[in-house]
Amino acid sequence: MAVLVTRRETFSAGHTLFNPRFSEERNREIFGKCSNPSGHGHNYVLEVTVRGEPDEETGFVFDLSELSSLVWKLVLNDVDHRNLNVDVDWLRGVIPTTENLANAFWMRLDANLPDGMLFSVRLQETEKNSVERRRD
Amino acid sequence: MAVLVTRRETFSAGHTLFNPRFSEERNREIFGKCSNPSGHGHNYVLEVTVRGEPDEETGFVFDLSELSSLVWKLVLNDVDHRNLNVDVDWLRGVIPTTENLANAFWMRLDANLPDGMLFSVRLQETEKNSVERRRD
Amino acid sequence: MAVLVTRRETFSAGHTLFNPRFSEERNREIFGKCSNPSGHGHNYVLEVTVRGEPDEETGFVFDLSELSSLVWKLVLNDVDHRNLNVDVDWLRGVIPTTENLANAFWMRLDANLPDGMLFSVRLQETEKNSVERRRD
Amino acid sequence: MAVLVTRRETFSAGHTLFNPRFSEERNREIFGKCSNPSGHGHNYVLEVTVRGEPDEETGFVFDLSELSSLVWKLVLNDVDHRNLNVDVDWLRGVIPTTENLANAFWMRLDANLPDGMLFSVRLQETEKNSVERRRD
Amino acid sequence: MAVLVTRRETFSAGHTLFNPRFSEERNREIFGKCSNPSGHGHNYVLEVTVRGEPDEETGFVFDLSELSSLVWKLVLNDVDHRNLNVDVDWLRGVIPTTENLANAFWMRLDANLPDGMLFSVRLQETEKNSVERRRD
Amino acid sequence: MAVLVTRRETFSAGHTLFNPRFSEERNREIFGKCSNPSGHGHNYVLEVTVRGEPDEETGFVFDLSELSSLVWKLVLNDVDHRNLNVDVDWLRGVIPTTENLANAFWMRLDANLPDGMLFSVRLQETEKNSVERRRD
Repeated sequence: MAVLVTRRETFSAGHTLFNPRFSEERNREIFGKCSNPSGHGHNYVLEVTVRGEPDEETGFVFDLSELSSLVWKLVLNDVDHRNLNVDVDWLRGVIPTTENLANAFWMRLDANLPDGMLFSVRLQETEKNSVERRRD
Repeated sequence: MAVLVTRRETFSAGHTLFNPRFSEERNREIFGKCSNPSGHGHNYVLEVTVRGEPDEETGFVFDLSELSSLVWKLVLNDVDHRNLNVDVDWLRGVIPTTENLANAFWMRLDANLPDGMLFSVRLQETEKNSVERRRD
Repeated sequence: MAVLVTRRETFSAGHTLFNPRFSEERNREIFGKCSNPSGHGHNYVLEVTVRGEPDEETGFVFDLSELSSLVWKLVLNDVDHRNLNVDVDWLRGVIPTTENLANAFWMRLDANLPDGMLFSVRLQETEKNSVERRRD
Repeated sequence: MAVLVTRRETFSAGHTLFNPRFSEERNREIFGKCSNPSGHGHNYVLEVTVRGEPDEETGFVFDLSELSSLVWKLVLNDVDHRNLNVDVDWLRGVIPTTENLANAFWMRLDANLPDGMLFSVRLQETEKNSVERRRD
Repeated sequence: MAVLVTRRETFSAGHTLFNPRFSEERNREIFGKCSNPSGHGHNYVLEVTVRGEPDEETGFVFDLSELSSLVWKLVLNDVDHRNLNVDVDWLRGVIPTTENLANAFWMRLDANLPDGMLFSVRLQETEKNSVERRRD
Repeated sequence: MAVLVTRRETFSAGHTLFNPRFSEERNREIFGKCSNPSGHGHNYVLEVTVRGEPDEETGFVFDLSELSSLVWKLVLNDVDHRNLNVDVDWLRGVIPTTENLANAFWMRLDANLPDGMLFSVRLQETEKNSVERRRD
C-alpha cells in the first residue's frame, strides 16, 4: 500500500555556468550562452517525492505542510533569490548545472528525512529542461 | 515493446480531513485548516496509467476512450461534484486524504482491468500536492 | 506609460449552488450536479490587476508583495479552506457562483485600494470556467 | 549519483487512424472519429530522457542543446508539420497511434545514443492522452 | 455589475495553409512549412467569452453548460477531428489561418447568442500562437 | 474584422532590484529579497500582440514567424541569458522591474512596427507576477 507523495515548490535564482579551470573559450564552447560572466537566472520548479504507507489514523504518509517547511528550511531559504555561484555555502565549488543542483538538494534532504523515505528530487530549470534524481 | 499509456481526467469534490476518534484539538493540530468542519474542496486531476504491448492490428494498448469510460463508471461518477466524506459508499470510514483516495481508486480500477495491466494511479489535489500509487 | 500589474493567488473552498427560494427540482434543473446539497469544491485561481504608472524611483506601480498581503487580508483568509455557503460573513445570502464571487471580491478590493486603481478581478473556478470583472 | 535528464520539444503533425486491412465499418468501430479519412492533427509534446552521471568537469550528463539537436535531426525534422500517414519514410506501414509513434521514436533515438543511455520517450498527443516507453 | 464569463474548450483538427490562386513557390514563401500539401494539424484551444449581469436569482450570466453545448453544436462538432480545408461546409473557400477561423467561429456564435452578448472568441493554435476577436 | 494576434516567447535573464540613489537599508525595505546585490533571475514569458485585419489573400494579420524574428532581433537577443542590470545598452539606468522592462520592450517594438499595430506587450516574471502594457 506504499504510495509516492509529492510536494511542488518554486524559487528564483541566478547563476552562470563557468568552470574556472577552463579557458574562457572552452567555457564558451561547452556552456554556450549560459557562460555569460555577468550571469542570468531562472524560475526553478522543485518537486520532492517521499515514499511510504499512509498512517492508519491520519491517512498521511507525511504531512505535506511539514515537508514544505523542511524543504524551505534545508534548501530553499538558502537558494531563493540568491546567486548560486557565490551566495550558498553548501554549493561552494559546484558548477550550478541542474544535475549538480538536484544532487546537492537530494543529499541535504536525504540526510534529514527518515532512512529510505526520500524517493525523488526533480528540478525543472526551464519549460524545456529538467533533471530528476531517484533512489535506485 | 511494452509501453505506458496514460489518461488524464479531472473532477471537483468537497471534503474535510477529520478523524472522529480524535479530539477537535488533535484534528486541528494534525489537519490544520483542512479540518474545518463545514468542509472545503478541490479540482482533482486523476491520471490512470496502464501498461502493455500495442496490438499489432490496432496499434493500441488499450482504447483510451474505453479507459476513460471505465474510469468514469468505476470511480468518477461517484465522486465528481460530491462530498467525499458523506456521499460515497465505498469511501465510508475513509479519511479522504489524497493518499487514501489514490489507494481506493487503485483498488476499484485494478479489480476491473486485466490482471497486472494497471500501472499507476496519480491524483493531484492542488498545484502543490499530489500522490501516486504504482504497481511495485 | 500606465501599465497593468497582475498578482495570481490560489485558494481551495467548498460550495454548493442552491437557491433556497427555489424547489429542489428547480435547483436541480438550473444548477445541475452543482446543486448536490452536501457540497463539493474547487481550487480557485484569483488574478487581481491594478493599473498605474511605475514610480520613477522604484519602478513599481504597486509593490506586488503588498498587493498579495492585501488580497489575503481582505479576501483569501476568509475563503481559503472554507465553505462559501456558510463560513463567510460577507457572502451571507449570496449564491456562490463564480460571477457573484468575482463581484464580491471586487467590491472588497476596490474599497481598499487607491481610487480607480483596481482594474480587473479574474476568478477561475475550473480549467474550463472563469469570470472576470473589469472597470468599465 | 546517476540522474535523469529530460528535454521537452513540441511539434505539430497530421494523421488519421485507419488500418487498410479492416473494412471502413471496422475502422470506424475501433478508431471512432480518429478514422476520418481526410485526417486531423495534434500538437504533440515529446519528452526525451537520458540517464547518466554528471561529468565532473562540466556538471552535465548530456549537453541538452546537443540532445535537442539530435532529437530534431533524428525525429522531429521528419515529422513536424507533416502528415504521419504519408510523409515519413520510417513510418511507412505503421498506424500512427501514440503508442506506435513513441516506439518508432525510441528506436531511432536509442540507435544513435550511447548504449543504454536513453531512459524514456514520452509522447503526449492531447491534454488527456499520452504514452511513455521506458527502458525495462 | 457586468462581468465577462469564459468557457474553454479544446479540439483537434487538420489543415494546410495554401492559396490555390498562388503558385506553389509563392505558397511556400508565404506559408512556409505550413503549406505542406499533405497537411498537418493542431490541438486548438477555444475560449468563448460572453458579457452580462448575473441574474439575481441564479447568480449566472449564462449557464456555462449551456454555453458549452452551444459552442459544440454551432462550431466544434463540425471541426473536431476534421480536416479544415475539406470537411467543413461553412469554411469552404477560407484559408484556415487562426485569424480566419476565429472570425468564422465569431460569426456563427454571434448570430446565435442574444444581441451584443458575445464579447470575445480566442483561439490558440499552438503554445506560441493565438488570435482573439473581440467586440469593438 | 480586426483581430488580435499574439506570439509567445520565453527567455531567461538575471537581475537585481536596487536603486543606487537609495541607501542599502531603503533598498532592502522597498525591494526585499529582490535587492540581494549578487543578483537572482527568472524565466520570463513575453507575449506580444498586434492588431489588424487579416489580409484577404493570405489570411494573416502579420506572419507570426516574422513577428517572432522581429521580437528576437529587437529585444530578446539582447536580454536572453544576460544580466539586465549590466549587459543591455538600452536598459542602462533603468531599474529592471517587470513594469520598466515591459515599457522598454514596448518602445523598441512600437518604433519598428507599422504605426498603431502593436496592441499589447505582456511580460510574466513568475507564475505569480506579470505586467501588461496596452495601447490606450
